[in-house]
Parts: sequence; structure tokens; C-alpha cells
Amino acid sequence: MLKIDSHTHILPKKLPNWSEKFGYGDFIYLQHHKKGYAKMMRGNQFFREIKENAWNPDLRIKEYEKFHTQVQVVCTIPVMFSYWARPLDCLELSKYLNDHLADLLVKHPKHYLGLATIPMQDTELAIQELERCKQIGLQGVQIGSNVNDLNLNEERFFPIFEACEKLSMAVLVHPWNMMGEKNMQRYWLPWLVGMPAETSRAICSMIFGGVFERLPKLRVNFAHAGGSFLPTLGRIQHGFDCRPDLVAIDNNVSPRNYLKHFWVDSATHDPMMLEYVIKLIGSEKITLGTDYPFPLGDLEIGKFIEEMGLEKNVVENIFYRSALEWLNVPLERFS
Amino acid sequence: MLKIDSHTHILPKKLPNWSEKFGYGDFIYLQHHKKGYAKMMRGNQFFREIKENAWNPDLRIKEYEKFHTQVQVVCTIPVMFSYWARPLDCLELSKYLNDHLADLLVKHPKHYLGLATIPMQDTELAIQELERCKQIGLQGVQIGSNVNDLNLNEERFFPIFEACEKLSMAVLVHPWNMMGEKNMQRYWLPWLVGMPAETSRAICSMIFGGVFERLPKLRVNFAHAGGSFLPTLGRIQHGFDCRPDLVAIDNNVSPRNYLKHFWVDSATHDPMMLEYVIKLIGSEKITLGTDYPFPLGDLEIGKFIEEMGLEKNVVENIFYRSALEWLNVPLERFS
Repeated sequence: MLKIDSHTHILPKKLPNWSEKFGYGDFIYLQHHKKGYAKMMRGNQFFREIKENAWNPDLRIKEYEKFHTQVQVVCTIPVMFSYWARPLDCLELSKYLNDHLADLLVKHPKHYLGLATIPMQDTELAIQELERCKQIGLQGVQIGSNVNDLNLNEERFFPIFEACEKLSMAVLVHPWNMMGEKNMQRYWLPWLVGMPAETSRAICSMIFGGVFERLPKLRVNFAHAGGSFLPTLGRIQHGFDCRPDLVAIDNNVSPRNYLKHFWVDSATHDPMMLEYVIKLIGSEKITLGTDYPFPLGDLEIGKFIEEMGLEKNVVENIFYRSALEWLNVPLERFS
Repeated sequence: MLKIDSHTHILPKKLPNWSEKFGYGDFIYLQHHKKGYAKMMRGNQFFREIKENAWNPDLRIKEYEKFHTQVQVVCTIPVMFSYWARPLDCLELSKYLNDHLADLLVKHPKHYLGLATIPMQDTELAIQELERCKQIGLQGVQIGSNVNDLNLNEERFFPIFEACEKLSMAVLVHPWNMMGEKNMQRYWLPWLVGMPAETSRAICSMIFGGVFERLPKLRVNFAHAGGSFLPTLGRIQHGFDCRPDLVAIDNNVSPRNYLKHFWVDSATHDPMMLEYVIKLIGSEKITLGTDYPFPLGDLEIGKFIEEMGLEKNVVENIFYRSALEWLNVPLERFS
């Protein structure tokens, strides 16, 4: 069976020293300090150690073979977004990363699909780069759950979503810049508590801001099974119902109506929660997604799903049909 | 069948003007601007309008009769915590609220149980007031999901939890002071997104900080079905497993081991999510809880649970047995 991992991250092996080039800011750069490993540095601060599977496409393909998975949808690591930078500098950085992806897709068309990154802090430049990425063969774009603390309902982002719809570019919303981060550094809580909340914040903002209502053909996938949105939908729906004066101010359509309007990935790390998600939105809206190659990812690439005893059709939806639909890629590409 | 609502809020009809008395700060006061309604004011800022059922015990008992519910566990509204105030001022305010509850319990012993509020910003005063509240007949204490942005694993809070265990005072952890609040004012997101995250933050902090490990007899209930903690447990557990260097630094016992160590209330507003919670922690760890009398509450007092077709034993657990266990109150009190 074809398996498409809809949520994986990759970097070029080498990153320019943008801080030096642009003369400001803590842009990420890589220190290849020992064989097979590199340190992601943010300015002089250590951010994260990554392994060769973060940049070596052949090694990645091999690692995926162990889990009978043929295709990886790749995008950058959210810390690379650089939405805080000067727009033209972020555009340059984005182009560098996007060209790397485009090149990868040309070299390995059966193994990789790609999602761009764009300078969300500048609507015009973002659309310009989105159009270019369409030309160079990427399938969509990854954006953050917020942009410098602005939520995705903001009018300034709407033309970008509109362009995604028009160009048929898929969108992956990934949590980052986590709320509450500075007050819960201990125990990795920005990742364990902040990230699921970020994704719920993004989905709520897009629903209540009317983005899905105004752009019915926009195809959006939310990381980590939509974070805490789907399991707290009862509360969110009740909030909409009981205080429309606070919640339904920009869009009076009930949140439950949008459950078939977007995708989420399968990264629940828990069969019981995945069952809940399947029951709620249907397997045709769930894409296999792992967050590979990071430790918090589902690094057995959906093995827990294989072990759930789901119907074949449900597994097929999750493993490839939903992703093909979300990305608007024909099955034939992989046959 | 006995029904105990484990999560409801109440205020005295009159609040002193503490800002005037103490000479600083935006303490909450009430403006009874029309019959049956009052405005909660924070300084000169309107915070929330409440109705008579927020302060009138007889009216509340009548409203509960419609839903065949005999007992309400009452506590203050989290905005009253005043953890930001000078400790002695917060103590005075807490005493005022706690005396009001104690008086209510004496007058209506078959209808009310009560949870104190204590000045968490001062460990010694908090314990002093906790001991006094035990004496005046309260069953436990309600605390916030964080205390002035400090998490519940902080050593300064441990003696308070220790005193709760020693005194057999139950604890209700309620979300408040929501992470990300200032960046998501629109669409009521602090309540719809921030609150579930706050409760997850609190549970994670208590688990990873070793509070449950060190105090196995401490009885804690978490509001709103534990917020986003239970449905994102897969991610949290995986984080613990894959990065013990970040997560297991203060307690190396797996989070799943604590699923029988605490209670959550039933306020999911959704039968499917409640089923998930029942499957995960068992009905003996779920207490009927509504957040009455506020609009975001389950104001039909567990009607959706009655309609779920659950086994009688499961419903009995949720409707009263779990609450009696959590509060350490004998069934005979209500017969």
C-alpha cells in the first residue's frame, strides 16, 4: 500500500550565515560539529541538535523503507520561518529553502513532495513567493499557527489564503511561537502544552474569522491531529452557541459545520484519540503525518495505525488518499 | 439518584470595596445596577455581568431542582483569587469569601459543599487560612492553574499541597490567568483555547514536578475534564518517553501512571469526548461538574450524560460517588 507521510521536516545541509549577511538578527545557522550531526544555532544560542536524516534525502528514503513508506511531504522547520525579519531578508531566506525543496522534488519525484515557506509578515511578498513556488513545482506552503502573535483571521493574511486557493496550493498550519512559552520552560511544556493550544488557536481563528467560509476550496491541513481543537470542540461549539456576541462576530456559521473543510494529520501518538478523530471528521480528512525526523515525532511512520485493526479503506484513506486529495496530486505520480 | 455538581461558582451578594480599603489595585466589586443582575467591576473596568443565581442560594437550589440535582459544590470565581495582591490583603479577602461559604454550608447542609480560596502567593498565610477553613467546615480549596505565572510544581507551593493532604482538604484546580490571553482577545479565545491549555499545564506541572508522587493521598480534581491534558496524553507521554532529559528531570515516573491519581469533572459539552475520558480514566474518577451559573457552563447539569445510555453504575459514579470520594464526604450527609 502506498504510504505518504504528510508532515516531515527537512533542511539543506548548508545554510548561509544570514545574520552576518543581513547584519542583524538571530537567524538559524548550522554547525556540523561531528559526522552525522549538526547543531542548529540561533545567534550564539544552541537551539537543537539534528541528525543527518534532517538533511540527507537518500538516508531519509532508506529510513522510510523500513516502514514501507514511499513518499515524504517535506517542509522546513518552523524556527526557520523568520517572520520577525525584514520582509525582503525573509524572502531571500525563503527562496533559498524553497529552491532546495524544488531541486529535491526534481531529483526524487517518487519520494518527495514539498511545501514552501513564505514571508507572512509581508502580504505582497508572500504572494509573490507563493506564485514562484507554484512555478517551481511545490505542492503547497507551510505557515505558522500565528505570525508574530497575529492570528490567522487577520485581514492582512486573507489575500495569501486567497492566492493559495486560486493557485491550488495546499496549506499546512504548524504550531510555533507558542503561547505561554516563557512561563513554562520546564518539562518541555511549550511543546507538550503550548503546541496543541497553538493549533487550536489557528483553527478557531480561521473558522471564526470566516476564512473557510469565504474560501471554500482552500485546502488546509493542521499538524498534530489539529492539536487540542477537535477534543475541545464541545467547549468551543458551546462557546459559539452561548456567546455569539463574542464568538460569532465575523462569521455566524457554526464551527461544527467546518469539520469536513480541513484535514488534520494522524500524529496523536495514541490509538484511542485517533479513533475519536476518525469518528469525528472521518478518515478521508486524516493524513498520515509524523513530524519526522524529530524525537517528538511518530518515528515508526504510522505503525500504531497499522496495529489498530482499522478497515482497509480507512487505513488507505489515512495512508495516502487523504494526502493526495489535500495536495491535489494524482495517484499516478507514484505508480 | 443523588446528583452532586462538583464545579459551581458563587459570590456573596455584597463585596467590600477592597480597592478603597487597601488603597491600591483593581479588586473586584459588585454594582447591583438592576434587579436580579449585577456588574462585576475590576477597578473601573466592566468584567462580567452576573445574575441573581450567582449569589442567591435559594434561587440556585430551585434552579437545580429542575435538573434533579440536590447538591452544589461551591467556590469563588477565579478572578477573585487576587494572588497579585499583598498577601495580607488577599488573606482578608479570602477570609471574607470563605466565611460566606461556611455560613452557607451551615444554613443549607444538604445542598451545599464548599471549597475555600487561599492566598497562594504566601505559603504560610495560605496554610494558615487552609487550616482555618478546615475548622469552619469547608471540604477543600480551589486554586488557579498557575499563581502569578508560576507553575504548580514550584517548591513554594508544595507545603500547601502537603497541608491539603494532611488536613484531608480536597483541591480543585481551575484554569485562569490564561496563557496567550493578550494575543487572542478576539472570539473569546482565552476561554475557548487558553483555558483547556491552562489545565493541561497544571496537570503536567503537578505530574512532572512529582507532587502526586510525593503526596499519594492528595485528592485533586481538574476542571473542564482536565482541559486538553487527557486528549493530548499521547503526545505528553511520548514527550516524556523520548526526551526524559527535558521532561523526567524531577520525577521519572511515567505520566500514564497518574491517571488514577486525580479526578476531572464532566464538563466536555460533548458525549463522544466524555466517552473517551471514561475509557481513559474510568467513571470513578469523573465528577459531574458544570461551571454553573456561567453561560459557558453545562447549565442543564449533566443532562447530556443522562442521555448517553451509560450503565447505571457509571452514571452513579459520575453523578455522586466520585465527588463523595474526592471530597471525602459520607453519602449519609445527604440521606
